[in-house]
Amino acid sequence: MSIFLPASRRSRRCWYLLVLCCLTWGAGHAETIKSPNGQLTLDFSLGQGGVPTYSFTYKGRPVIKPSTLGLELKDTPNLLDGFTITGTKTATVDETWQPVWGEVKNIRNHCNELAVTLTQAATKRTLLLRFRVFDDGMGLRYEFPRQPELAYFVVKEEKTQFALAGDHKAFWLPGDYDTQEYSTVTSKLSQVRGLMKAATTPNSSQTPFSPTGVQTPLMLKSQDGLYINIHEAALVEYSCMSLDLDDKNFVLTSHLTPDAVGNKGNLQTPCHSPWRTVIVSDRAGDILESKLILNLNEPTKYTDVSWIKPTKYVGVWWEMITGKSTWAYTNQDNIKLDSIDYNKVKPNGTHAANTAHVKEYIDFAAQHKLDAVLVEGWNIGWEDWFGNHKEYVFDFVTPYPDFDIAELNQYAHAKGVKLIMHHETSGAARNYERHLEAAYSLMNKYGYDAVKSGYVGDILPLGEYHYGQWMVNHYLYDITEAAKHHIMVNAHEAVRPTGLARTYPNLIGNEAARGTEYEAFGGNNADHTTILPFTRLMGGPMDYTPGIFQTKISAYNPQNTSFVHSTLARQLALYVTMYSPLQMAADLPETYNKFLDAFQFIEDVAVDWDDTHVLEAEPGDYITIARKAKGQSSWFVGSTCDENGRTSNIDLSFLDPGKKYVATIYADAKDAHYEKNPQAYQIRKVNVTRKSKLTQYCAPGGGYAISLMEAGR
Amino acid sequence: MSIFLPASRRSRRCWYLLVLCCLTWGAGHAETIKSPNGQLTLDFSLGQGGVPTYSFTYKGRPVIKPSTLGLELKDTPNLLDGFTITGTKTATVDETWQPVWGEVKNIRNHCNELAVTLTQAATKRTLLLRFRVFDDGMGLRYEFPRQPELAYFVVKEEKTQFALAGDHKAFWLPGDYDTQEYSTVTSKLSQVRGLMKAATTPNSSQTPFSPTGVQTPLMLKSQDGLYINIHEAALVEYSCMSLDLDDKNFVLTSHLTPDAVGNKGNLQTPCHSPWRTVIVSDRAGDILESKLILNLNEPTKYTDVSWIKPTKYVGVWWEMITGKSTWAYTNQDNIKLDSIDYNKVKPNGTHAANTAHVKEYIDFAAQHKLDAVLVEGWNIGWEDWFGNHKEYVFDFVTPYPDFDIAELNQYAHAKGVKLIMHHETSGAARNYERHLEAAYSLMNKYGYDAVKSGYVGDILPLGEYHYGQWMVNHYLYDITEAAKHHIMVNAHEAVRPTGLARTYPNLIGNEAARGTEYEAFGGNNADHTTILPFTRLMGGPMDYTPGIFQTKISAYNPQNTSFVHSTLARQLALYVTMYSPLQMAADLPETYNKFLDAFQFIEDVAVDWDDTHVLEAEPGDYITIARKAKGQSSWFVGSTCDENGRTSNIDLSFLDPGKKYVATIYADAKDAHYEKNPQAYQIRKVNVTRKSKLTQYCAPGGGYAISLMEAGR
Repeated sequence: MSIFLPASRRSRRCWYLLVLCCLTWGAGHAETIKSPNGQLTLDFSLGQGGVPTYSFTYKGRPVIKPSTLGLELKDTPNLLDGFTITGTKTATVDETWQPVWGEVKNIRNHCNELAVTLTQAATKRTLLLRFRVFDDGMGLRYEFPRQPELAYFVVKEEKTQFALAGDHKAFWLPGDYDTQEYSTVTSKLSQVRGLMKAATTPNSSQTPFSPTGVQTPLMLKSQDGLYINIHEAALVEYSCMSLDLDDKNFVLTSHLTPDAVGNKGNLQTPCHSPWRTVIVSDRAGDILESKLILNLNEPTKYTDVSWIKPTKYVGVWWEMITGKSTWAYTNQDNIKLDSIDYNKVKPNGTHAANTAHVKEYIDFAAQHKLDAVLVEGWNIGWEDWFGNHKEYVFDFVTPYPDFDIAELNQYAHAKGVKLIMHHETSGAARNYERHLEAAYSLMNKYGYDAVKSGYVGDILPLGEYHYGQWMVNHYLYDITEAAKHHIMVNAHEAVRPTGLARTYPNLIGNEAARGTEYEAFGGNNADHTTILPFTRLMGGPMDYTPGIFQTKISAYNPQNTSFVHSTLARQLALYVTMYSPLQMAADLPETYNKFLDAFQFIEDVAVDWDDTHVLEAEPGDYITIARKAKGQSSWFVGSTCDENGRTSNIDLSFLDPGKKYVATIYADAKDAHYEKNPQAYQIRKVNVTRKSKLTQYCAPGGGYAISLMEAGR
Repeated sequence: MSIFLPASRRSRRCWYLLVLCCLTWGAGHAETIKSPNGQLTLDFSLGQGGVPTYSFTYKGRPVIKPSTLGLELKDTPNLLDGFTITGTKTATVDETWQPVWGEVKNIRNHCNELAVTLTQAATKRTLLLRFRVFDDGMGLRYEFPRQPELAYFVVKEEKTQFALAGDHKAFWLPGDYDTQEYSTVTSKLSQVRGLMKAATTPNSSQTPFSPTGVQTPLMLKSQDGLYINIHEAALVEYSCMSLDLDDKNFVLTSHLTPDAVGNKGNLQTPCHSPWRTVIVSDRAGDILESKLILNLNEPTKYTDVSWIKPTKYVGVWWEMITGKSTWAYTNQDNIKLDSIDYNKVKPNGTHAANTAHVKEYIDFAAQHKLDAVLVEGWNIGWEDWFGNHKEYVFDFVTPYPDFDIAELNQYAHAKGVKLIMHHETSGAARNYERHLEAAYSLMNKYGYDAVKSGYVGDILPLGEYHYGQWMVNHYLYDITEAAKHHIMVNAHEAVRPTGLARTYPNLIGNEAARGTEYEAFGGNNADHTTILPFTRLMGGPMDYTPGIFQTKISAYNPQNTSFVHSTLARQLALYVTMYSPLQMAADLPETYNKFLDAFQFIEDVAVDWDDTHVLEAEPGDYITIARKAKGQSSWFVGSTCDENGRTSNIDLSFLDPGKKYVATIYADAKDAHYEKNPQAYQIRKVNVTRKSKLTQYCAPGGGYAISLMEAGR
């Protein structure tokens, strides 16, 4: 018998040793990994009864106290306890990648990884927990390897705990299976229950699930000044996660969106959950600068991305939102697409998407170097599109008689402008899928390269929810089918983004929060845009549709008493603070023509960036961000503040060394006020370098925008 | 003022008079229509409280006693009572039309119609009840005109009563939202409740709903010898109806299939329910000869029907059903279509749909002048296709590595044979729709002109049922999309047919009952085929797949102890008694080659007909039918009987006058018996004319088949 075993047998022997070693691991044994900079620590161990447990600290301060992990399964034993550790593996990732579009040119993905293999002896099943710790937070996910005892299974509930260290201040929305269009409530966690009812304002489709349920991204601030953000990354073939709060112990537990029969996930091994993410810092700006969620998504699946282009656009939209005009071509109610003859029905005279009027938008876009014009209400069916659970609500290919699709595209293209397609589904997902190929083909035929889609109202078939696995699958299907046609997608009322645009960069935008439209439906809180970047935008860009200069809605529709809770100057700032590769100039050309000096900022501002610096930030109070235009020397700064107003002090050290810039500052006038005097703004030009400092007043509900153009260019 | 009003004003005046007249009609006022022959009478009146009520008699004998009509609606007042009659209109229809394929060349649609307009004063809503009375029964439906107070509405339940005159004998299946594959129970209505549990045998997807719920077509026989059949016609954009029995009073009430949230219909005016049909006669054969259900369907919507062709086929199917071979190419479990590489997985050696083997079927079909060969198991995914609620279960376009789709179609076409496509959906309706266009296009590419589709297992998304409105819509979508590709559809596990093939004649077949496959799953009752034509087949043809000659399943698979509950001779009879334009010779060529004398009948028998006579019939006991081949002088007779055996006495007066025929009689041998001696048959030839009479013994579970060829042809 030789002492020297052949290599293959040696490795097998090592494996045995590893197994033996593993089998001795039980409750109490802890695995630890740290962030690359050493300041963040994740501990994993098995608690009493073999319950997977983790905790997470930042600079020695508790972020997540010991919290359990696991899943309840349907009709089969749970994956909650009875585990032993049968393997661990650590790794370090350090790579830099370039997004197709984004806030920065290069993104560094730098983390330490721990993969723990858990075996449940009683069921002979294996579960793998993968943790990644970055300098700005952590991600964890469940992985279900292919194995004889676990092929297909149904998740009854995921039980991922986030045990918080105290009664933090939270920026939260009511947890809901169907809508994210609530106003953010800022309160202590202990106050959530008491505020829930008032926070759950009416919506076109809504299914709140718990008196303490909240949505992600959930932004938190501890009393000792830690900023904590909880969300998920890479939501694919799984249900969207909300969080249910134990408001005695401040423990959040995952709560998945069910299907019609209450199941929360139909899975087949090998598979994994999305990542559950905790981003943390003692500086609020770090939260906004974090690329952790993108880093936890897969690289793009597309080989050719040349057709994906950040876009600035105007649209036939705000005039309908305000009630000045209509999507519908007639005032007829109760119509059927397969029997109505629009040529025989009297037009209502208020239909905005008519050829002559759309040309005005095209002219304006061409004049001001905007890329595109969105047109809503171009297609038949808008007379009774909503609220009837009607399946064949739109066909997505037939224009109203007064919308000349061929002529308008020709007209636009001749002026270097594109039209953006609009597909409202009214929640009838099957009907949309049936027409998808024809609809995308029509777009190709006429040269549309982007579509805004919508899911207003309850999902059909009833019982499915906007954020369930069935619809998560649908939204991604739309995106990948669109990619085959080289079409970019901006999906409204779809599930909230989780960084998927890294993998599918034609997902150029989402709504998934209370957008500017609500300024015409009663208004957004004045601090709304100081919060959204910390919450909704953590997962991906939002088509917020800023740029409303006529803040009194009654100017467009005397019946509408809403007003925009923002100064005009702040509307400009949003093009910088609300990052998106798709930016709308949402107001009407007739209004912009009255404020062309201010509109100049919208014309100039970039929609894709090489660099980004968060200069100042405090959720709920203010955000000031500087960004450098993609491939150019120009920078843009935006600052938004809450209803109290403030003075912003920034230095311009982010500017390129050795260069001189002309700064054009679009700021609130001294007497500006989001409610009383929103249109009072001043524009001034100053020469600056990276050594310059700026002190700038922001009115209540105000802000400022700065374009910094290299001097002499 | 002139006495002579202009025509337009005169007609308006008449209308006023009509309205005045109508307004005086209240409870008690009855409307009556009779059948064209005067023997059937339908009475309609408003009962106490303005409740719509009808009754129906046959030759003065009550068929339906006073029964109420109406609907419960959701979130809005019901349409059950409070009505006044505000209009009535009668009409007579008498027309003759030719089906694209069928049992007879010409069909006469002859009936009297009564349309009653009902107004519910309290809600200002209008409901129209339309009745049609034929010589063989009646139909009624609800029509919901377009009106201001009723645009979109949700049906909570339809409340159509059928109050029977007594405790009839019933041929019934347990009411179920998902399956019709139960054995028929023959019992008194009063015995239904007691027999329900035993009748509800396990199925791959099943949702029984009531201890007295039964399906339609429901066949009944009264103690005084009236044959009554209750079903529905033209089920479109509505939920499939079952019947719930009040077993004290023998009143059946409609029970619709719900959606995931319990709604039973999403409707938009103008619209109507399917027809509710009652076919009645004192001669059982009249039920089988009735064309009432077809007459209540709309004429075909297709202008070109030249591509629709009745088809006789063999198939790679029975060998998998018996367990002799497999659909799957490997024995791997837990596979994913998007990651498995079949070229790297070990084949199991039992995969039937391989190129060489399929060629044997093609050769056999060509040799025996059969039109086509069905091949199941040709496409990837069969390793774990069932029972997992897996959505991406098949792609419908990728063959297994051993199935050369191009070569096989070329080979078949060169021999004048077509291949029939197979699309099992596993209930994943969305997945099927996503692949439908590619799947049908693939069929066009290779020259397939028919598809057998299947819906085994629960419908996805869960909560939807096989017979709900959502799936009813899906099945018709498949049919109309197929028509665009000139493809015929034979849908298994789909909703039961309701005569829709008149309108969409590419719906060439359905399963929707317990077919021959159950002979390999424990067996069908010996009287099964004496009942099916009175129940399942009333709505349309069934792909029953007869022709099993090797009745011991163990001959193919030693593990399978099932046997076919039929003699071999009776298997031949089914090609005549079980009308279908799509007929399979379901057994294996290797078996047919051992019984080529008997197979001659299958080779000869027609699949499309100019004329049909039901010579003898008693549900549950026996059926003897004669049919004349389309465009030919030959006739075919089939006779099936129950487990008791009998002697059939028929005369051949249906034969054409002045012609001489050679009758080839395929009959049970004297010692034949469906269980003990099923393969004992005799074939004899005799010369006959229309004056001939035939006395023919049928063994228990037996029958006979006759081909009648004009002498000298």
